[in-house]
This record gives sequence, C-alpha cells and structure tokens, in this order.
Amino acid sequence: MSHTESAHLIVCASLLEKITNQAALCRSCEVLGVEQLMLPRSDDSWEFRKIAASAHQWQRLDYCPPDQLKAWLGQQVGFQVVALTVHKSAQPLSGYAFAPKTLLLLGRELTGIPTDILALCDVALTIPQYGRVESLNVQTAGAIAIYEYNRQWR
Amino acid sequence: MSHTESAHLIVCASLLEKITNQAALCRSCEVLGVEQLMLPRSDDSWEFRKIAASAHQWQRLDYCPPDQLKAWLGQQVGFQVVALTVHKSAQPLSGYAFAPKTLLLLGRELTGIPTDILALCDVALTIPQYGRVESLNVQTAGAIAIYEYNRQWR
Repeated sequence: MSHTESAHLIVCASLLEKITNQAALCRSCEVLGVEQLMLPRSDDSWEFRKIAASAHQWQRLDYCPPDQLKAWLGQQVGFQVVALTVHKSAQPLSGYAFAPKTLLLLGRELTGIPTDILALCDVALTIPQYGRVESLNVQTAGAIAIYEYNRQWR
Repeated sequence: MSHTESAHLIVCASLLEKITNQAALCRSCEVLGVEQLMLPRSDDSWEFRKIAASAHQWQRLDYCPPDQLKAWLGQQVGFQVVALTVHKSAQPLSGYAFAPKTLLLLGRELTGIPTDILALCDVALTIPQYGRVESLNVQTAGAIAIYEYNRQWR
C-alpha cells in the first residue's frame, strides 16, 4: 500500500455501536487504503471476521472506547478533524477540499455525533441526500467519504 | 425528490444474490435519489425491511430475475449502461464522465458480472483499490458509484 508523501487518512469509528457496521467498515477501509482505523474495542468474533472479509488481518486497527474519545482526539495534532453528519447545516462533502492529513470521525448509528464531540471537530460534512429515509447506513456513508478523500489525494 | 430535467439514474441489482445486500442497497438508493432500482425479485421479509430502513416504501422498485437480464438490458434504449467491476482493465470511476441517462449494473457478490452480460455494457468502471482484500462489498461499491454520479449531475 503506497501513500503519497503527504496524504494520511485516519478513520475513527469509536462511536459505532454495531459490530456489523464496524466489520463492514474495516473491509472498506482496507480496500480503500485507509492508514489507520480506530474501533471502540477489539473483536475477534466469527461474525466480525466474516463481514470484514479478513480485512482485519491487513488493516491497521487501534482501539479507543467512546468515553476516551475526547482525550484521544485532543492528541491527534496536525490532523484536520472532519465530522460526517446528517445535519443540514454541514458543508456538502463533494464541495469540500480535504486536507492531506485528515481524521474522519463517524457517528453513532441512531444519534450521530454528540454535541460536545462535534465541538472538537474542525468541520462538519454531509452527503447530499434526496430521499425520505433519514440517512445512509454509517459504514456506507463512511466509505463514500473515504472515496471522496481518495479522489482528491490518491 | 427532484431530478434535473436530463438526469436519470437506474441501478440494476438483478445479479445480487444476498437479501442483506439488496436491502442495504435499497436504503442507499432511496437516500441518494436513484430513480429506479431493479432487484431480482420481490421480498417483503422482516430482514429485508429492517435493513432497508423502510426505504422500500419510497424507492421505486422493479424486478428482473437474472435469467431475464439480457432481454431487459436490451430494452433500456437511450441509457448508457455502466458496469461496475473489479477488473483492472476497467476505467477508474473518478475519471469517468457519466452520461445524464445512466444505467448502473452491479455484479454477483463472489463472481461479479458474467462475461456475456459485460459484453452488453457500454463501459466498465472500477473503484481504485489499495488493499489486499479483493473487493468492496457490492452495495458499498454501488453507493460510491451513485455518489460519483450525483456529484456530476445533481
């Protein structure tokens, strides 16, 4: 896996609650060349490994439980922290110029990113939606944002 | 849901074998404003409805079993038929200029699009991959391609 010299993408999924989404995201991150994926905790269940399609063997994984997320975010010096939300006030993803060093933060499946965590982010982005269902699945949304980052930087 | 006058996107998932992927794709299509989603057959199971997050209530769905796919494709006059594959010979998605009237064809989970069906497509696109796992999940890949179409046309 080769990164351009200056491009580094970290994806933080510490807020994701469902193992199925964490595992599917692990697969997407590995295929799309994400440098580091943060999960809330380690999981070597059969379900995780099956949905991850063995990506957990190759993807760099680190762990940060939700109650330590604020402290961990504070340590990521030099990264633009980008929150992915469904808020209409957020900037549309496709019009945003990513920084080469980006940390993409995903939210909880039902409630998104808590306000106090969102306040720590540099920018909030949203994927333009046109339907009546409230949102994309979180791992699908995450994969789209990673694709957009790659389109700009890889 | 408003389309620009000339933009029409149909997604064909007739080759998808897993209900979980069909249902997740249904949600992504509804949220991303896809005009029509083709599935191999109707399914009103609890599993489908749960994963689709009720999107099946709003998404225009039509049905075409795999053995009728060739005939159905032949009827889609005026649409650019775009195959999404993992073939390295395919054009990268992000460099492709979509036609406003596009039909996006997705492949089987394990084996992709059969050669005789691929021969009927106008172009084959691939999402650039950087990892060791063979491919993205098919509905995740489909959602990324729909996002790219929307980025160009909506």
